[in-house]
Amino acid sequence: MSGLGVVKGRDLSKKVRIYDTTLRDGEQSPGISLTVDDKVTIARMLDALGVDCIEAGFAASNEADRKVFVQLMSDGLNADVYTLSRCVKGDIDAAIECGLRHIHLFIATSDIHLKYKLRMSRSEVLDRIKDSISYARSKGLEVMFSCEDATRTDYDFLKEAYSVAVQSGASVIDIPDTVGVTMPAEMYELVYALSRDIGVPVAAHCHNDLGLAVANTLAAVEAGAEVVHTCVNGIGERSGNASTEEVTLILKLIYGMDTIDLSGIDRISKIVSRYTGYPVAYNKPLVGRNAFSHESGIHVHGILNNAATYEPYSPEMIGRSRQISVGKHSGAHSLKDKLSVMGISFPDSSLGDLLEEIKNLSVGGKEISDIELAAIAENLLWRGRSEEYVRLDEFVVLTGKNVTPTATVTVTVDGVSKTCAMTGHGPVDAAVNAIRAAMDNRISFEELRLESITGGSDSLCEVTVLVKDTVSDGHISAGKAVGIDIVDTTVDAFMQAINRDYARSR
Amino acid sequence: MSGLGVVKGRDLSKKVRIYDTTLRDGEQSPGISLTVDDKVTIARMLDALGVDCIEAGFAASNEADRKVFVQLMSDGLNADVYTLSRCVKGDIDAAIECGLRHIHLFIATSDIHLKYKLRMSRSEVLDRIKDSISYARSKGLEVMFSCEDATRTDYDFLKEAYSVAVQSGASVIDIPDTVGVTMPAEMYELVYALSRDIGVPVAAHCHNDLGLAVANTLAAVEAGAEVVHTCVNGIGERSGNASTEEVTLILKLIYGMDTIDLSGIDRISKIVSRYTGYPVAYNKPLVGRNAFSHESGIHVHGILNNAATYEPYSPEMIGRSRQISVGKHSGAHSLKDKLSVMGISFPDSSLGDLLEEIKNLSVGGKEISDIELAAIAENLLWRGRSEEYVRLDEFVVLTGKNVTPTATVTVTVDGVSKTCAMTGHGPVDAAVNAIRAAMDNRISFEELRLESITGGSDSLCEVTVLVKDTVSDGHISAGKAVGIDIVDTTVDAFMQAINRDYARSR
Repeated sequence: MSGLGVVKGRDLSKKVRIYDTTLRDGEQSPGISLTVDDKVTIARMLDALGVDCIEAGFAASNEADRKVFVQLMSDGLNADVYTLSRCVKGDIDAAIECGLRHIHLFIATSDIHLKYKLRMSRSEVLDRIKDSISYARSKGLEVMFSCEDATRTDYDFLKEAYSVAVQSGASVIDIPDTVGVTMPAEMYELVYALSRDIGVPVAAHCHNDLGLAVANTLAAVEAGAEVVHTCVNGIGERSGNASTEEVTLILKLIYGMDTIDLSGIDRISKIVSRYTGYPVAYNKPLVGRNAFSHESGIHVHGILNNAATYEPYSPEMIGRSRQISVGKHSGAHSLKDKLSVMGISFPDSSLGDLLEEIKNLSVGGKEISDIELAAIAENLLWRGRSEEYVRLDEFVVLTGKNVTPTATVTVTVDGVSKTCAMTGHGPVDAAVNAIRAAMDNRISFEELRLESITGGSDSLCEVTVLVKDTVSDGHISAGKAVGIDIVDTTVDAFMQAINRDYARSR
Repeated sequence: MSGLGVVKGRDLSKKVRIYDTTLRDGEQSPGISLTVDDKVTIARMLDALGVDCIEAGFAASNEADRKVFVQLMSDGLNADVYTLSRCVKGDIDAAIECGLRHIHLFIATSDIHLKYKLRMSRSEVLDRIKDSISYARSKGLEVMFSCEDATRTDYDFLKEAYSVAVQSGASVIDIPDTVGVTMPAEMYELVYALSRDIGVPVAAHCHNDLGLAVANTLAAVEAGAEVVHTCVNGIGERSGNASTEEVTLILKLIYGMDTIDLSGIDRISKIVSRYTGYPVAYNKPLVGRNAFSHESGIHVHGILNNAATYEPYSPEMIGRSRQISVGKHSGAHSLKDKLSVMGISFPDSSLGDLLEEIKNLSVGGKEISDIELAAIAENLLWRGRSEEYVRLDEFVVLTGKNVTPTATVTVTVDGVSKTCAMTGHGPVDAAVNAIRAAMDNRISFEELRLESITGGSDSLCEVTVLVKDTVSDGHISAGKAVGIDIVDTTVDAFMQAINRDYARSR
């Protein structure tokens, strides 16, 4: 990329295998707990993307993981399905009972883990490696073997442990940087040395405690690693593992190596985020909200002329698209472009007013969404015509225990009043149903977004409502309201959205 | 850290200066818009931490940033205060008008930026560099100069541009990896070459589009860079910049270099997150919720014996503390430890039951909070005594437009029924007030937590309620419910919490 391209000595024709451990190390993160169905769905998606190995759980630790393994083995995935396993017979038996053909055995080898966790001597550890791998091999399992905390293990002992593993039948040795403290140059040296000294394919498992998991994984590949352990969205114990998306994109973009189907990255990131309940940071590489989002005038100006000015690769490559955001840093260039994309032709003469209004609104620190921008622009265009087209004259709702939520409304549209009563699943639903009925169901209620509330029983809530005009063109309009009464506030936002839709069509 | 420590040839006695651009590149992120007060507060905190340079904004672009600069200059910070500035006279004048003594001038030098953004020739760019730096110097400003998109610029032209800059008076040259596509080895080579060819201190400004900003920044330091550009929480355009916290910790932990006061990292991260509205990812290194959080049995067991087994450095070093979480992956070790910290002595004989219950509850994907763990443990201890002490026999609430929300309840406590009606700011508030009144205000409603909802008007909501026993010991009890009717669901959670409080005191 720079004028001084540096290519390390790796044979780039050698394929790198992606060993995804989202469902094991990722799921081990505090608070993540996937159901059997969640795990099976994610594993199938990973398989469809072309991941080579899927570590789908820890068969010995719980019944749910065993169900996952049984299901995946009956699915017949292309990927090799692995379980993590301690070097104990019971764990290996659990893998066999699930019908697995691949197992990832591990035991710690660093002095600190031997002394404070395992309370074992080095020779006991070597015996355990030998016995468990031999047993797993005798049952026909393919073995990947890890020395846990390898990067903090004395090199001579590490070499001995891996040698015993290979002599006992391990076909891949994995080097975990368990606490994520290794620097890329150190990882390079370690992988290089073990590749040379042991003679079977080497894998790398890098944690992100210092923010270097991806760099360390690449350093391992440059040193000859043929397998990389990754997690979608970089989840995993503590600060997580190297992210599947960053590693696979870089392997393609910088090293020219094909691994998984990159165009599915955005989708699997979203699914994993939803199932785990772990939001993706706005500024996460590739999959964060901002990765292809541009707001500042200088950047937007460049992007509009040639996207490569401020984009390292095309968003479509990973299944995404570009966003031009609007906020305090926006220039007239970006506003005009945004609006024209939304089908609003805005006169140049009023762009200054619009820019001013946007900057004032966003000084409070709020981002202006597309829908809000459209609403502000439309308001400016139709200023002076903002009367209420649809008026809510009366609204009462009743709910409680053993009471069917019931709402009564009187709505006036174009001077004609209509009163309707409807029930619903709750007071909000009843109110929405009654208002829609009073308007002959011309408007459908598309989405309710309620920001999470923490506070007393009288805390403020912020509600955004999207409605669709089902009669004319299917246009979506938004309304937003803030208030204490969650029912009343939602109804306010709903009425606002309805009026915005009416204003548009006049 | 590994048996094969690798130390590059850098003179480690040379201090690395931290140039924090949270308030400029960070604030330029879509949707971030800090007020003058926010920026001044953050700048003062950065100064107190010992950051060497603070890029606090872009004086020419808006009035708010100019106010920030004027305030900071009158504060007399220890840090050098910089503004970003295009190579145009107006921008430089804005810096002078704010009383600044330091300026960060930039102009793009890559062919793609010249052709599609600047529409300038290389010689025009060189003239602009010369003229603007000379002008800034003539006004007494210290100049840091950046070739924007340096890493995609032809090396010979890059060298020429920086040479002109230094000849014109720039005292530091900064190398921005503007679109974040450089690999660490390339960054090393580029910084090394420019340090050798130009002869003034070199800075590095690394973007994180491929997840390599921190690794690239360290590569630059290893190659001799004396200044590093960073942002708190790694915010910044698109996927952000190298994070201040990761870079400064690694410089200390791995290279032994002192920069800022690391113990303030957690605090500034929280402030920046709050002011920008950018949540920190759970798995963000150092400052994420999980960085020192341990849930799985194996890890917790190790941590309890010796924290260094699974922690690369002590959380106190950056102003944090360790968390033992409880969930599906927990072992008996962690549960017992957690409960004893909360003052609950739980018999070993029931730990298996508790573990089972936790695992079942968290299969749905939920984390068990401390309060919930205590409640579950207490329920187990008092099992068989879980009758309903306080029963809600009747509950009706009325709300609407121009209607004062009003609730009527009949509550039976210890066989005695009482009916009360109360109003409130909304239906939830009215219901809570009525139930409290029926119980002689023995219980106070402490907190309502409602998870954000996105869906139709009949989507599920999840409510957690905390109540305080105001009569006896001020104990906090929690209740949690899921349902469609937000009012009814909150009342359910409230009644659960009340019964948990009663169960405890029997």
